[in-house]
Parts: sequence; structure tokens; C-alpha cells
Amino acid sequence: MIRFADRTAFTAALSALPEPGAAAIAAARTRQAELTKPAGSLGRLEDIAVFMAGWQDTPRPGIDRVQAVVFAGNHGVAAQRVSAFPVEVTAQMVANFQAGGAAINALCRAAGADLSVVPLDLDRPTGDISREAAMSEAECLAALNAGAAAVSADTHLLLVGEMGIGNTTPASALCAAAFGGEAALWCGKGSGIDSEGVARKVMAVEQALALHLPNCSDAFEALRRLGGREIAAMAGAILAARMMRIPVLLDGFIACASIAPLVARVPDFAAHCLAAHCSAEAGHVRLLGHFGLEPLLQLGMRLGEGSGAATAVPIVRAALAAHNEMATFAEAAVAGG
Amino acid sequence: MIRFADRTAFTAALSALPEPGAAAIAAARTRQAELTKPAGSLGRLEDIAVFMAGWQDTPRPGIDRVQAVVFAGNHGVAAQRVSAFPVEVTAQMVANFQAGGAAINALCRAAGADLSVVPLDLDRPTGDISREAAMSEAECLAALNAGAAAVSADTHLLLVGEMGIGNTTPASALCAAAFGGEAALWCGKGSGIDSEGVARKVMAVEQALALHLPNCSDAFEALRRLGGREIAAMAGAILAARMMRIPVLLDGFIACASIAPLVARVPDFAAHCLAAHCSAEAGHVRLLGHFGLEPLLQLGMRLGEGSGAATAVPIVRAALAAHNEMATFAEAAVAGG
Repeated sequence: MIRFADRTAFTAALSALPEPGAAAIAAARTRQAELTKPAGSLGRLEDIAVFMAGWQDTPRPGIDRVQAVVFAGNHGVAAQRVSAFPVEVTAQMVANFQAGGAAINALCRAAGADLSVVPLDLDRPTGDISREAAMSEAECLAALNAGAAAVSADTHLLLVGEMGIGNTTPASALCAAAFGGEAALWCGKGSGIDSEGVARKVMAVEQALALHLPNCSDAFEALRRLGGREIAAMAGAILAARMMRIPVLLDGFIACASIAPLVARVPDFAAHCLAAHCSAEAGHVRLLGHFGLEPLLQLGMRLGEGSGAATAVPIVRAALAAHNEMATFAEAAVAGG
Repeated sequence: MIRFADRTAFTAALSALPEPGAAAIAAARTRQAELTKPAGSLGRLEDIAVFMAGWQDTPRPGIDRVQAVVFAGNHGVAAQRVSAFPVEVTAQMVANFQAGGAAINALCRAAGADLSVVPLDLDRPTGDISREAAMSEAECLAALNAGAAAVSADTHLLLVGEMGIGNTTPASALCAAAFGGEAALWCGKGSGIDSEGVARKVMAVEQALALHLPNCSDAFEALRRLGGREIAAMAGAILAARMMRIPVLLDGFIACASIAPLVARVPDFAAHCLAAHCSAEAGHVRLLGHFGLEPLLQLGMRLGEGSGAATAVPIVRAALAAHNEMATFAEAAVAGG
């Protein structure tokens, strides 16, 4: 299990990221060329199989164990009325997750993913980022480690999701701090606020950037000042997955924003990630562009919870089914092109 | 089981297509609004659930029985060297399907779809469309009925695919006849021919159109003159599905081209269809535009066999899992937006 002793250990981990297995990638590409189909005709399914082979470091990658973790947190900035829902909904939805009645429950059952839910101090919202840092150093480290601890070492594919009323606001702030651009460029309707709500969100992000930006070149510090517990936990989980060479299916805007400070510091940080989908939330397409990732799905989803990632799991399953189960031209006695 | 007694019966069926159930659609929309998520936040998954509800005529549609049928045929026009593969590959791939080693086998297993394979007179290629009609009236009717007969009445979701060396050429001819435009606009690389092969394909399509176009305003006649056995079978299956109100996941360029003459005659013919994906084959995006359908997936696939449709089945499963299994705001005691 990965655990960061302190912020220095977190930063050090970012400087020593493992790469995928080159031999496994080469062997997987060779196999793809031998399967009974015109070369390249399975499109991105072929690329996904090779990607999975590299990170699992085997020519025949598996997908028996798909782990989904939803982290939940509450946000002081919700007091600025940046969400369409009251803050009580975070805890109510955690109860809904635990009872099996939320979208992510149904989608994980359909996708064959094992779901766990990690609520993080819901009765202690973070500081309001428009006025103060979201977390103390100890709080941020605890959240990162809660994320890292949630990742099982034998996972074939990881997805992380979030629940936290108001959390598109810290997500927008993290993106603006990582990649620049006006606050308004990164602020959308979230769970469905009106234009006045969006204006309040833009103002909160502008105030947060004015207060914290000079100290945000460090990834830990950006997460501590502008993030939130579930956001730092997602970053910790995705970093831990990279350290264990576990491939990750990235969910939507907030899940992606959690690693924006890491990608800003280490441009290939998301190399072990597939973008599951492009959310309808305004900033997500721009953020994926900064990551250099092309989404697998574009279905206008904007729910969070890991719902987009869960919906894309079967695409990865399809890629590996074809890769592992198809006959070669020689085996099937089919004439090549 | 649907069976067309003659070409008149086929044409009459096109004039009396059933519509989806309006009450089921309304009930499904009401349910979507009550589920524990911000309104609209599951994007197209919500629309898919409502679509399935309408065609199955129930507020809680099922997806236990997914049927995939691959039709295979051989084409006289292959003699014009329009494919990267020799014609023997059609029968070799049918054997591969029957042995379980092709992409569609692996993808159907992953998607939980029951696959059947229907080879259609592989030792009797159709006429070369650049010089004569592909089929006689009896041959075309037999192919349409082979398609219609393959559809099980209790299917929750149907996908049809094809195998037929050279069959992008008749597909391109059918599209040009249905929707106009230069032959070159509808001709792509198929399974991977070079630019000289594409030029031969364009010429074959131009010759076919010069010969047959004046007689192609009738859908049956277009299929008979420009199509092929597996193409007419797909059209018959998709029409039979509409007559039984079975929703269909459309595969790629050739599967879609099979119904181009039907859509040209009845603009809402494809109302019971979802476009599974947009193929890398050049004409597919244009064809989907004529159908008014937005593809679920864009993964650069161009294999045929029903592979794109099989890959999209889990998207429909995800939509119905969320629709049928999620708790309502009232059930979960979650505060609404």
C-alpha cells in the first residue's frame, strides 16, 4: 500500500514515476497485427489493448478486477451559493451510495466494477477557498493518503469518482491555477445552477486565485489551498495507481481537475490514464486538451460519482476481449490482406 | 415471424410502420426526472432509456436478450479488384465466426449478445453491379426474408452485421443512389485498399449508377440492382425489427447503407435505430447525417461484422441499469435541486 509520509514524499513520488513495460507493448502490437481483421480496423480498441498491456506489463492484460472508489467531501465555499443543491445532499448521497441506489451503483453493477465509498469528514467542511486555504497541511496529507490507501494493489483497472456539493468551484480554481486562463473559462453550470450562480462561482474562483495563486506552483500546495478532501483523495489514488502501474479510467471534470496540479508539474503524469468521457461541464474539454487525452465517450454526461468512467469500462473490456480471444490469421486459416 | 410474400408486400410494409408507445415514453421521462441525480445529468443515457421504453412499449425496458446476427455474401463486383482481400476470405471468415475466433465473437461474448451467423449462397456471388443487376427478384426477396426470419420476436435489442469481400462497393452505390452526390464522395478505403483500388471502386460505382439509377427510386429495386445478399438480408432484418417494434443498434457503413434506400423512401424509417458508432469508412459520417442519427461511439473502428454495434451494447445496458435500478429522490430521502 502506498502512503506518503509527508509533503516531501508526495513531491518526490511525482519525480520518480514508473513507465509502462516496453516489451509488453511491443508484444501486444505484434499480436494485434496477427489477429483476423484488417490492420487497424478495431481503431482505438487496439490502442487500448496495447495501453493496458504496457501498464500491466504483460502482452495479455486482464480486466477481471475493476475497482471503483467514490470519495466524498464537503466544501466551505458552498456558503457562496455556488451549487444548485444544499450541502446536506453530500451526506444524503453517500447514504444513497451505501444503500446501492445511486447512478454509480447501477453503472458499476452493469460494468462489473467493485464499488467502495470513502466519505471524508463530511461534518467538517474545508475552509472557504475564496477566503482561506481549503485544508491544513495535515488535512491535505490525510486526504491524499486516504486516496492512496483505497487502491488495491491487484486492481486491473481503477476508476475514481467524487461527491461533494460545491466541488466544481475548487475544481475550476485548480484548473485555472494549473493551466491559466480567466476564471470564467473554467466555470460551468455544475449540477445545474443558473447564470447568477455561475457568476458567484466565477467570483469565488477569482478571489481564490487572487489569494492563493502565488503559492500554487507546488502541486501539494495547490491541492491544499484550492482543493478539497475528496479532490486530494482522488489525486492521491491516481498517483498511487501510477506508482503501482495500475491503469486508470478518468471520470469527468472534477476527477480530472484533481490531477491538474500534477500534470502541470509533470506533463506525462496522466500517461497511465484513459479519459473515459468528455463531460458536458464547460471546462472539461479544455482540461482534456491540456492532458493530451481524447475521450472514449461523449454522451453529454455531467453527474460525477465516477459515472462516466463506469460507463466506459465495457469499452476497455471489449478491447481486451478482442485482443485476448481472437484467432490469428494462421490459427483460423484466413488469408491475410 | 415476418415474411414478405413478394416485392409488393415489402413495399406495403414500408408504408405501415408502427410507432413507439407514447405512454411508455411519457412514463419513462417522468421516472428519469425522479431519479437521484441532477436533471439531465446522465445525458444521452437518459435519452436511450426513453428510446428503449418507447420501442419496447414499457416504462421499464429490458435488455436481457440481445441478439446479434451476421449475414455473409459474395459479390460479383469483387472481380473489379475493389477489395484488399481475396473473395475466399468471406467463407474463411464465416468459418472463423462459427469457430468463435473473430472479433464479433469476442465482442458479443463481452457484450452478452447471442450471435448467429447466416451465410447466404457464398458459392454463388451476386451479379457484378457495374455490368448487371446484383440479384434477380426471387434472389433479392429470398435474401430479405432470410434477414427477416433471423430476428427473434422476443429480442430486446437487435444488432446486424455483415461479412462480404467487396461489399463497400455496393454499399457506396446504394448511398449515392439514395442520397445523391458523386460516387467518390461515398467511396473509402474499405478493409484497406490503396488509392488505385479506391479509384477502381469509384469507377465501378459510377458504372453501376449509370446502368441502374433510373430504376432505383423503389427501395426493393435499389437493393436488388445495387445491393447484395447480406445487404438485403440486413435491410430485411432491420425492417422486420421495426414491424415488431424491436430496437436496433446500427453498425457501420455497410449495415447503414443497407437501409439507405428505405430511409430515402421513408424518412423516419430509422426511428427504431440507434447509431452505435461512426466508422472510419469515409461515407459513414455523411450517411448518419442523412439518417439524422448521432453515433454513440467514435472509436475509429472500420471492421464490420457488427463489431461497432456489439461494442456499443454496454452503453445501452448502462442506460437501462441506471433507469431501472436507481432510487428516486423520495425513496432515498435526498433533497432535490
